[in-house]
Amino acid sequence: MRLSRYFLPVLREVPKEAEIVSHRLMLRAGMIRQQASGLYSWLPLGYKVLMKVQRIIEEEQNRAGAIELLMPTIQSADLWRESGRYDAYGKEMLRIEDRHEREFLYGPTNEEMITDIFRSYVRSYKDLPLNLYHIQWKFRDEVRPRFGTMRSREFLMKDAYSFDEDKDSAVKAYRRMFVSYLRTFRRMGLTAIPMRAETGPIGGDLSHEFIVLADTGESAVFCHADLLDKPIPGIDTDYEGDLQPIVDDWTSLYAATEDIVDMAEYEQAVPEEKRVSARGIEVGQTFYFGTKYSEPMKANVTGADGKDTPVHMGSYGIGLTRVLPAIIEASHDDDGIIWPVSVAPFEAVLINLKAGDDACNSACEELYAELADAGIDILYDDRDQAAGAKFATADLVGIPYQLIVGPRGLKSGEVELKHRKSGEREAVPLAEAVSRLKSLIVPQRMDQV
Amino acid sequence: MRLSRYFLPVLREVPKEAEIVSHRLMLRAGMIRQQASGLYSWLPLGYKVLMKVQRIIEEEQNRAGAIELLMPTIQSADLWRESGRYDAYGKEMLRIEDRHEREFLYGPTNEEMITDIFRSYVRSYKDLPLNLYHIQWKFRDEVRPRFGTMRSREFLMKDAYSFDEDKDSAVKAYRRMFVSYLRTFRRMGLTAIPMRAETGPIGGDLSHEFIVLADTGESAVFCHADLLDKPIPGIDTDYEGDLQPIVDDWTSLYAATEDIVDMAEYEQAVPEEKRVSARGIEVGQTFYFGTKYSEPMKANVTGADGKDTPVHMGSYGIGLTRVLPAIIEASHDDDGIIWPVSVAPFEAVLINLKAGDDACNSACEELYAELADAGIDILYDDRDQAAGAKFATADLVGIPYQLIVGPRGLKSGEVELKHRKSGEREAVPLAEAVSRLKSLIVPQRMDQV
Repeated sequence: MRLSRYFLPVLREVPKEAEIVSHRLMLRAGMIRQQASGLYSWLPLGYKVLMKVQRIIEEEQNRAGAIELLMPTIQSADLWRESGRYDAYGKEMLRIEDRHEREFLYGPTNEEMITDIFRSYVRSYKDLPLNLYHIQWKFRDEVRPRFGTMRSREFLMKDAYSFDEDKDSAVKAYRRMFVSYLRTFRRMGLTAIPMRAETGPIGGDLSHEFIVLADTGESAVFCHADLLDKPIPGIDTDYEGDLQPIVDDWTSLYAATEDIVDMAEYEQAVPEEKRVSARGIEVGQTFYFGTKYSEPMKANVTGADGKDTPVHMGSYGIGLTRVLPAIIEASHDDDGIIWPVSVAPFEAVLINLKAGDDACNSACEELYAELADAGIDILYDDRDQAAGAKFATADLVGIPYQLIVGPRGLKSGEVELKHRKSGEREAVPLAEAVSRLKSLIVPQRMDQV
Repeated sequence: MRLSRYFLPVLREVPKEAEIVSHRLMLRAGMIRQQASGLYSWLPLGYKVLMKVQRIIEEEQNRAGAIELLMPTIQSADLWRESGRYDAYGKEMLRIEDRHEREFLYGPTNEEMITDIFRSYVRSYKDLPLNLYHIQWKFRDEVRPRFGTMRSREFLMKDAYSFDEDKDSAVKAYRRMFVSYLRTFRRMGLTAIPMRAETGPIGGDLSHEFIVLADTGESAVFCHADLLDKPIPGIDTDYEGDLQPIVDDWTSLYAATEDIVDMAEYEQAVPEEKRVSARGIEVGQTFYFGTKYSEPMKANVTGADGKDTPVHMGSYGIGLTRVLPAIIEASHDDDGIIWPVSVAPFEAVLINLKAGDDACNSACEELYAELADAGIDILYDDRDQAAGAKFATADLVGIPYQLIVGPRGLKSGEVELKHRKSGEREAVPLAEAVSRLKSLIVPQRMDQV
């Protein structure tokens, strides 16, 4: 993409309304724009990152055997009356009347609707296990939306729903999602720690929140330090095999949110030098809630014994529009965002220090074509602007590698390669620039880990 | 994908509520499920096709220089008061009050919001031309939703918005979208004819509807027969070059919808043997409406002469959730859907005639792995069911090629290949099945036309 033809409205001023660094940087980097309280447009750069996050989630959900579909944003109130949540949900639910004065709502989650889909089609235990997910916009009418897309009203969530014959199988389904979450977040460059948590309005008796540590986190968390650098299950993980050892390995070390922590238990379980008391951002949550919805909504399956029983369910959420600011909270410096390669809006930026100069232009055009051919997701800063402004933009928007082409370097057949994260700069022979970049970028894509 | 682990709830009965064939087939093939009047879930098979349609649109929009972003579904009423459309829009607009009794609406289109984004960031003619698009769910509260997703209330639309300095440049932007639409629809296997049309509530004085001919179409259309088999502009089309000759070539032949047709003009312009009076389905519409929104909303740019003038705009829609039924209306038979390869939910289905038989199983497993390696989007019907049921499902859901593996064929080292569209069957040596399929499928992907 040529920057001169892109739409990247970076801001020089620090927006006053933004309280946390991710919100400030997302506004400044031209990723989002607030349209009304808690409602955001995703500008091209932000949308590109959002879609990379979505792809990773889809790949890992599919790998774990979940199947993607899409439910509508607007739901009938009657469906929520069946589960009893219509009245219970309170003011966070955006309630809507259509032209015929029928009651609807903008879905804050989809347990009821997916249960309705399930009961319409599935009758037999032979069709289980089943795990259906979608990635759809949801709405929660927060009293006081804040922190940008971290706590917006309209937000994008992946929610998966598992259906099983009994609790045993349902716990196995839970483990598949648990393991896939470990992989999903790490692939985005996040260290997300599963912590025992309250189940809240979803219900159930088994739940984990996946928490990213950050000073700006909304809640206090308590965990064992060894969880911070535990290796994730690899790409060869067999989701049809026994995942209990992996889950046990992760859950045997203490980790709990403030809602549920027992300080005496924590201090007994974790040696003092291993205690991490910090603040955390929740990026995902997993629930097993058994027959909470299937019973009132009569979602039954016929077992091998010919008897009908309510299906056992779990649900598994990831807040995509929270994941982005969480990554930024975990990875930035004074100059701007530092994207991990796997979710970077562009993997590298080609900076032409002297747009208009014949030698610079032709070297850049050639590199741009070669980088695109090599499959690098490249932004070409071809604008007629001062070098300082180009560097500032590249640092602010956080592209992992900057390939800097100037008249002086070209005379000696060299370009400069800057690593955004370390600040390291290296001179690279022009002819080797593409292969050098590729050798840095490909292993960091995290698509084969 | 193994069918035994997929979620494909096909229906045997013909649903009574469905009036047109595409609605019936989408329900029967397990593509969609109605959740309430005009509200649909996209089940896995339907969602897969929807996403293939979306990819084609994105590729062709990007090729034509448009840039993707994403605006929220919920919009502030105040924004629509600025353009004067809040009161004018009537009951089709779904109006919403939040918990603080502030007025919002579920966006039926996005002229106001994109104009607001534009005026917030763009000041100079130097930043033009600009074309921003998004693919987002919209809502129109139809009195009587019908025909499945052809006229649903919640629907998925691609809407692009062009911004230019003056009418001349705006007309060039219009032509870029016009040409990209010709390519977009043809790549989906549709013959969509651009016809002069009314501008309706969007406004403006230049507009085309892109119409697919079908007996079940909602409106009568009148055009020259030569438009039906005109070759589309190729992949090498230069969107920065002069597109007027292409547009003139298409618009010089008469084509108009019933709203705007002048029968005398039609009969004079088209020789009797070339007159096509038919019914049509609108799958896209393009508008140039000048300063209709930029003037009241004060979206000005400073020109080379230092003067501020309202920016000239156009908008360009494609209804994704209409495109799918339109493809089915145009391509089906008594047995079910016939998908063009480019948007088929799977490119081929591997049918194991005797699941459980060692020879059949091992031949199928090997083929399944090889087909996936060869990049074929393959469904493997590994279920323990009668051959007849498997054939019926494959025909109903419309997968372009069926690779049929049975014990008898295997004994002579052969499998059967059925072409869904022609019904043709050929015996293929087992060892050549993958390459034969690939040679049929790859050219029909339409990604290089």
